[in-house]
Amino acid sequence: MKKNFWIFKKNQWFFENEVPFDESEIVIGIKVKRRLYSGKSPYQKIEFFDTFSFGKILVLDGILQTSEKDEFIYHEMLCQIPMFYHPNPQKVLIIGGGDGGALEEVLKHPVKKVWMVEIDEKVIQYCRKYLPSISKKAFKDKRAEIIIGNGKKFIKKYKNFFDLIILDLSDPLGPAKDLISLKFYKDVKRALKEKGVVSIQSGSLTCQPKLVAIIYKRMRKIFPYVKVHRAVIPSYQAGDYSFTVASKLNLDYSLAAKKKLEKRFKKLKINLQYWFPEIHFSSTVLPKHLKEKIEK
Amino acid sequence: MKKNFWIFKKNQWFFENEVPFDESEIVIGIKVKRRLYSGKSPYQKIEFFDTFSFGKILVLDGILQTSEKDEFIYHEMLCQIPMFYHPNPQKVLIIGGGDGGALEEVLKHPVKKVWMVEIDEKVIQYCRKYLPSISKKAFKDKRAEIIIGNGKKFIKKYKNFFDLIILDLSDPLGPAKDLISLKFYKDVKRALKEKGVVSIQSGSLTCQPKLVAIIYKRMRKIFPYVKVHRAVIPSYQAGDYSFTVASKLNLDYSLAAKKKLEKRFKKLKINLQYWFPEIHFSSTVLPKHLKEKIEK
Repeated sequence: MKKNFWIFKKNQWFFENEVPFDESEIVIGIKVKRRLYSGKSPYQKIEFFDTFSFGKILVLDGILQTSEKDEFIYHEMLCQIPMFYHPNPQKVLIIGGGDGGALEEVLKHPVKKVWMVEIDEKVIQYCRKYLPSISKKAFKDKRAEIIIGNGKKFIKKYKNFFDLIILDLSDPLGPAKDLISLKFYKDVKRALKEKGVVSIQSGSLTCQPKLVAIIYKRMRKIFPYVKVHRAVIPSYQAGDYSFTVASKLNLDYSLAAKKKLEKRFKKLKINLQYWFPEIHFSSTVLPKHLKEKIEK
Repeated sequence: MKKNFWIFKKNQWFFENEVPFDESEIVIGIKVKRRLYSGKSPYQKIEFFDTFSFGKILVLDGILQTSEKDEFIYHEMLCQIPMFYHPNPQKVLIIGGGDGGALEEVLKHPVKKVWMVEIDEKVIQYCRKYLPSISKKAFKDKRAEIIIGNGKKFIKKYKNFFDLIILDLSDPLGPAKDLISLKFYKDVKRALKEKGVVSIQSGSLTCQPKLVAIIYKRMRKIFPYVKVHRAVIPSYQAGDYSFTVASKLNLDYSLAAKKKLEKRFKKLKINLQYWFPEIHFSSTVLPKHLKEKIEK
């Protein structure tokens, strides 16, 4: 591909809109085969493109949310890490996650029930049509209850109830704007059981360090144990992406914990492409310059 | 920054030329303050830009080589990993590395002598002028001998001589074209001592998987121990970048080796920003889909 040109034909390339908290002066263009859908829901603009590098992609308000080719990295980091921190997750709540990828990850485990609260029915509807490989059969699973509604209101009804809460939200803009507030995080904590774990996609360490820092610090204020994991998701902005996990429970990194995890993973016989016990631990190793960005 | 535009002004953005082995259909644009220099040497086109996100950058034949802001990740991964694999590196050879960043890393250790063989005198000259923060005082160090010449020819004169050889080369195009051949790698092995280690920047796991696989397989043919490390260098193409290390010596990952490394690092008291013992080990953990790309 000849790359040294300066005029991109609008129907051949996808460039993201301004991403909240993005401090980088970098643009990434993804070559597009065709646009599959474009429409508006009451909450946001919804688009699907077929691309050369990442297969089909979902775009909300001009920002890339997920891609067929690398969604497994995102969804396994977001879900398998907290699923494996918790000794026995039975009741799981997902807020957001309209593409069904998080739901599919959680249902790989022997959980009792998963609630998924997505505000935008259209996102679910069109993802099932254009990105069925992400959710697979998850929406048909009897253990799943799909609620179309406001996650912020939904969570207030619960106390000491969920083993695990997964915040699979878009950037804090539009419908997800209020879902990084300390108040909301306190409601999340209240809804969790004693050994409960919460998992958040917390933005790009490279391009949105202030966002990662805000989420990390708010979590630290209310949870005794907080850990940032990193992974590369090539379809997102350049660099390292972050996943923040917090718990009332000690997040154990001992050799004994590692051996226990390896045993449990082997016994479960679930099919994963990215997560495995070594990644669980190695993804917590942050170099100094990234640590400083979060903690300062 | 408003990102949803389609016409990039040529003096405001830097887009890379076609990168060899790059299979991705992605373009990355870096916003430029100004072009500092543009000229031609007998070997290649040399340019320097001042950019918003990465400070000053060096560009050879249209491909980004290094940036002020994230060169430490690249140079520490390329140099500190083999320096710490080797129990006591004394004689080190760098091929390429005209910006002086690798030289600076190696000289942080108590080595006896470092030879640096760079084919293009102009690259050294202009990097010292436009990117002095990368080499710092390395070119003035009495332990350093700078040779302007052909690395492929230079290495043939040596047998069982170097503790460490670092191949700090540009993509296999232009002057570095022949420096991924099995023949050259055999000469590298011959020039190494019994416990010798070689380190190679081996391309992007995300965008150039075939290049990583070629280098890995050629190394495996001639060295008993080969390891691929990964790191994110935000100024490079999207995704995970690879560094391949090979040795006649067992590359040890035991707990005992880790403790020894930690002790040595502490004693050396050298100032590093990216590498530390935990990164040394965690950067070897590759997920399944990347492992398969290299090994298949």
